[in-house]
Amino acid sequence: MKKHIYIYSPSGAVRDKAAFKRGVRRLQFLGHEVEVDADALASHTRFAGDDATRLAAIHRAAASGADVALISRGGYGLTRILGGIRYKALAKSIERGTQFVGISDFTALQLALLAKTGSTTWAGPALCEGFGVGGKPDPNDALSQTTPAVPDDIMEDCFNDMLTGQGEGTGWRQIKETGEFPQDLIVRASQATIWGGNLAMLTSLLGTGYFPDIKGGILFLEDVGEHPYRIERMLTQLLHAGVLARQRAIVLGQFTEYKLNSHDKGFKLASVVQWLRSQVKTPILTNLPYGHVATKVLLPVGAKADLHAEGRDVLLFWGNDHSGSH
Amino acid sequence: MKKHIYIYSPSGAVRDKAAFKRGVRRLQFLGHEVEVDADALASHTRFAGDDATRLAAIHRAAASGADVALISRGGYGLTRILGGIRYKALAKSIERGTQFVGISDFTALQLALLAKTGSTTWAGPALCEGFGVGGKPDPNDALSQTTPAVPDDIMEDCFNDMLTGQGEGTGWRQIKETGEFPQDLIVRASQATIWGGNLAMLTSLLGTGYFPDIKGGILFLEDVGEHPYRIERMLTQLLHAGVLARQRAIVLGQFTEYKLNSHDKGFKLASVVQWLRSQVKTPILTNLPYGHVATKVLLPVGAKADLHAEGRDVLLFWGNDHSGSH
Repeated sequence: MKKHIYIYSPSGAVRDKAAFKRGVRRLQFLGHEVEVDADALASHTRFAGDDATRLAAIHRAAASGADVALISRGGYGLTRILGGIRYKALAKSIERGTQFVGISDFTALQLALLAKTGSTTWAGPALCEGFGVGGKPDPNDALSQTTPAVPDDIMEDCFNDMLTGQGEGTGWRQIKETGEFPQDLIVRASQATIWGGNLAMLTSLLGTGYFPDIKGGILFLEDVGEHPYRIERMLTQLLHAGVLARQRAIVLGQFTEYKLNSHDKGFKLASVVQWLRSQVKTPILTNLPYGHVATKVLLPVGAKADLHAEGRDVLLFWGNDHSGSH
Repeated sequence: MKKHIYIYSPSGAVRDKAAFKRGVRRLQFLGHEVEVDADALASHTRFAGDDATRLAAIHRAAASGADVALISRGGYGLTRILGGIRYKALAKSIERGTQFVGISDFTALQLALLAKTGSTTWAGPALCEGFGVGGKPDPNDALSQTTPAVPDDIMEDCFNDMLTGQGEGTGWRQIKETGEFPQDLIVRASQATIWGGNLAMLTSLLGTGYFPDIKGGILFLEDVGEHPYRIERMLTQLLHAGVLARQRAIVLGQFTEYKLNSHDKGFKLASVVQWLRSQVKTPILTNLPYGHVATKVLLPVGAKADLHAEGRDVLLFWGNDHSGSH
């Protein structure tokens, strides 16, 4: 089904222009009409244009009438312009049928929008890392040797499900590696708000008016390049702020690209999960296929969902929520 | 003047035991009686003992009757035990004359104590990095080649001033490198609470009951190993939480050991300062000699102070505060 996809850059400057082009071509190959924002490739120090430029791009995306407004990439840049975003304009755009999709730094906009308007957006891919993979391996870059030639199947299927309105839920198995999960634990949550995203971005909104006041929610978290002690420090902040205790479930996604060191002496991500479970009664589930990884699902941030977890198996289902546009 | 100094480890495990021993010897050489906590060299994964061990060490330090309770080192570990600290016991210990001194991770305890009891503690050295410098240079460690052979004069003088109750203030010159400072700016604050410390630790308390509610204060900040974009993200959180606007002055100390990269394209610490000055009316002063550097002053966190800044010259004076034990 042909859709109109609007690409814009609210955060970091796009440096890998080849990946950007591959991403656009991939979406076109999938049959979509791709509209690229005038400043999608703008650059101002580390940002995709100065603050005014990026704000204008966000508001153009909202006014585009596209089916999907997809960020080019994450990086850093949204928190400092949260005060300039016209949240009602974005909410109206979503009411009219535009789905906002993004990851990483985009969490800041998604949560601020949820706090200000209750609107639903999607945690999912960015253009470059999601659809722009492939290209010739760079002999000087070990990472590029393992870059898949085509976008991840599951991610593309979930993206397509979102486009067609058929994305109703996701299921996965928890793993032991991120802490002992209670084998006999049964967790049920009904009509609970799915929210969350990047842990560092979510935590960086705490104490501000951009942090959503969600009670009885399903909070999902992921991060990249953060040592487990930093992950623990952020989770501890959420713990001490009472955020974790107010949720029905905490769902940990993928935490990747960190390095343990000789000082850790056994301290690892599993230690963090184990410790957190000793501090809060809210069930902490693991291994949600979402994060800075190729294989990821799309999640409607702000939608109501049912969660059922029994031992290792988890099912998250938002097909009963008919309040939003998803 | 001989003082009783109690050394304990509330945060990370001490790995550099030679530095620890040099620090103890240096304090003894300066004429002091040094008492080492039974678990000062304990190790449990990355921590100086498990949570119960470190909590017990903190409470032993409070019960020691020492003139000074000095941390061995920072690292990470205090935020996760903030719920177990008996703040009233620490406050009573301070009333009886024990001065708590530390840096880095210790900021979490200092601010939580300030929030819970209003007690004054000192931002200053830790034993290892402050007094344990020197030793033979390690040919495999570039950093150790430049480690000074003896502790920094100014730091030791300030430490001695604190011990004798003669530390009444500090003065310094702002630099241009961390942003254009207004040449003709005159800032005066009278009887304003000095507070702050490590930016990451302070920010990690925001939204929790351990964050002091200080209005009209002088907020000082430093950090180590954090890229300017992370420094900006943390400052932005304080900005959006309204913390910066409520202060009489923001005083930036030393931000060290970060690496700019090719993606920054001119974005640097000065950009952060410049941007922040465009967002908040509170004067932002720079170059306070405090942080993860050898030459640093000691600052009474929680004390009332007068600040006078005129162009580049700043004077911070707490000698008029006779409320605390400092």
